[in-house]
Amino acid sequence: MITRIRQSARRRGPQIIRGIGDDCAALRIPAGHEALLTTDFTLEGVHFRREWHPPEVVGRRCLTRGLSDIAAMGGSPIATFLSLAVPRDLPQRWVDRFLEGLLQLADEFGTPLAGGDTAESKSGILADIVVLGSVPRGKAILRSGARPGDLIYVTGELGGGSAALKALFAREKIRARDFPRHFHSIPRIAVGQSLRGKATAMIDVSDGLSTDLAQICEESKVRAELEAVRIPRAVVGAKRQPVSLDLALHGGEDYELLFTAPARRAIPVRIAGVPICCIGRITPSRGIVLVQEGGKTQSLKPAGWEHFRR
Amino acid sequence: MITRIRQSARRRGPQIIRGIGDDCAALRIPAGHEALLTTDFTLEGVHFRREWHPPEVVGRRCLTRGLSDIAAMGGSPIATFLSLAVPRDLPQRWVDRFLEGLLQLADEFGTPLAGGDTAESKSGILADIVVLGSVPRGKAILRSGARPGDLIYVTGELGGGSAALKALFAREKIRARDFPRHFHSIPRIAVGQSLRGKATAMIDVSDGLSTDLAQICEESKVRAELEAVRIPRAVVGAKRQPVSLDLALHGGEDYELLFTAPARRAIPVRIAGVPICCIGRITPSRGIVLVQEGGKTQSLKPAGWEHFRR
Repeated sequence: MITRIRQSARRRGPQIIRGIGDDCAALRIPAGHEALLTTDFTLEGVHFRREWHPPEVVGRRCLTRGLSDIAAMGGSPIATFLSLAVPRDLPQRWVDRFLEGLLQLADEFGTPLAGGDTAESKSGILADIVVLGSVPRGKAILRSGARPGDLIYVTGELGGGSAALKALFAREKIRARDFPRHFHSIPRIAVGQSLRGKATAMIDVSDGLSTDLAQICEESKVRAELEAVRIPRAVVGAKRQPVSLDLALHGGEDYELLFTAPARRAIPVRIAGVPICCIGRITPSRGIVLVQEGGKTQSLKPAGWEHFRR
Repeated sequence: MITRIRQSARRRGPQIIRGIGDDCAALRIPAGHEALLTTDFTLEGVHFRREWHPPEVVGRRCLTRGLSDIAAMGGSPIATFLSLAVPRDLPQRWVDRFLEGLLQLADEFGTPLAGGDTAESKSGILADIVVLGSVPRGKAILRSGARPGDLIYVTGELGGGSAALKALFAREKIRARDFPRHFHSIPRIAVGQSLRGKATAMIDVSDGLSTDLAQICEESKVRAELEAVRIPRAVVGAKRQPVSLDLALHGGEDYELLFTAPARRAIPVRIAGVPICCIGRITPSRGIVLVQEGGKTQSLKPAGWEHFRR
């Protein structure tokens, strides 16, 4: 398996001094930059199911999780590391197709596979993806910078990822092209980078809007007021229906960016081709309030998608 | 679990700009240095067994794997990242004690826990350790630099790790203090650093001398001649017996450093308190030859300890 990964990972970037094949990878961090590092599990039965997800999709989503974290700091990815443990009886073809999906995305973002680990798993496929990136010194966009008066924005649309999972749980036959963001996940790297010096706080929507916004509120010690009608709901399925407000609020795995910026700062309606919506504002105090159409308000508890735990 | 990890990981180093609690950790790489990165799985049933290994020992060994890789490049560790998936019914006490062992070692080497991921595992405990380190630019000691005429050296003693496993497999009752390197693993960071500019190639002995030396030979395109009588065998057990030559040659998980250096270069017999033995020399051609006492030679195939696969 190591040999195959090595072969697949021949393409090297200029920042990779030494890739796969030594005790560590050696990498160049650009002058004046800080290193960014994130790790994310992708576990069979927790984050994907072999009968639902083609291996290429699992590989792509696996790396998307890491790249999306780099995007959420306003960073640039440098290199990818994959720890992969598979059961002895897993067909080699599965691993090949998984790597194909992962390496295609790695190629798109110029972040070559530079190392990792392999092992035999006693049960199920286990992947841990590590992405190393960088950001100009002091320019990382943290979760803790939101201030009262800031507006709240989100990229793209929400609830598409969990709508696909909901359909799969309901044993519906679905087509990948009807749920593009679930089967062809895209990290918002360019948007994240262009928000450096503009956004005051940022996080990626991986656990669900209600949960991820609560993280910003907690870290920034502020309150958020969301306007229900403004939340961009994903349009999915053969009939191109918008998802329920519930899925848009609590569904996860959309890999969109959620950020805040001062009201005086002009934020374009599209950045790098991705639509940006203003969905609310930051106020003093704590918690999240949802303002319904008509003005009725309700408190919103973090209730992010808990993967396959239902 | 995340909260506990966060609490345990409060101690921050000066190079950690942002640790646990954001999308990524942000870290400072010293000026003029390259980043080093390594990832290593520690899987229940593959790398440890709950009935054999106290949780503190598992935690310590888990991080030792990563730090030993940094040592083998001549690097300095900066920060640790832990992805940890545990079964729902695992007692919290196990996780606490695991973290205790891991964080104590992290403290010893000034490499704080700066991030990671947590998940529920469907089966068994799964840990993936990531260590970020650095090394002065161009000074990383690779596996590929051994040249004919170089001498081969190893730190400490070999076979102690696998001797403990062999006894455990044989259902012997063993005491941790009789197998100190197995139950209290130590990465050779200081030795690795002091070999910068001196060693031509280096690797850590994690899979076994025969397998790890074969890696140096392959990457450097050279041959190795080992002298059986010079290989330092671990002294273990209640009776303080040296392990068999077989375990010293093929047993893994010793986390010693195996390196080569030009014959003209004086290598001290101890570095940072650790004994150094010269065990052979590098010649042209390929493969490994073992020279027995009396001069008889035999070809040595890589046959490193394959964990629990027997």
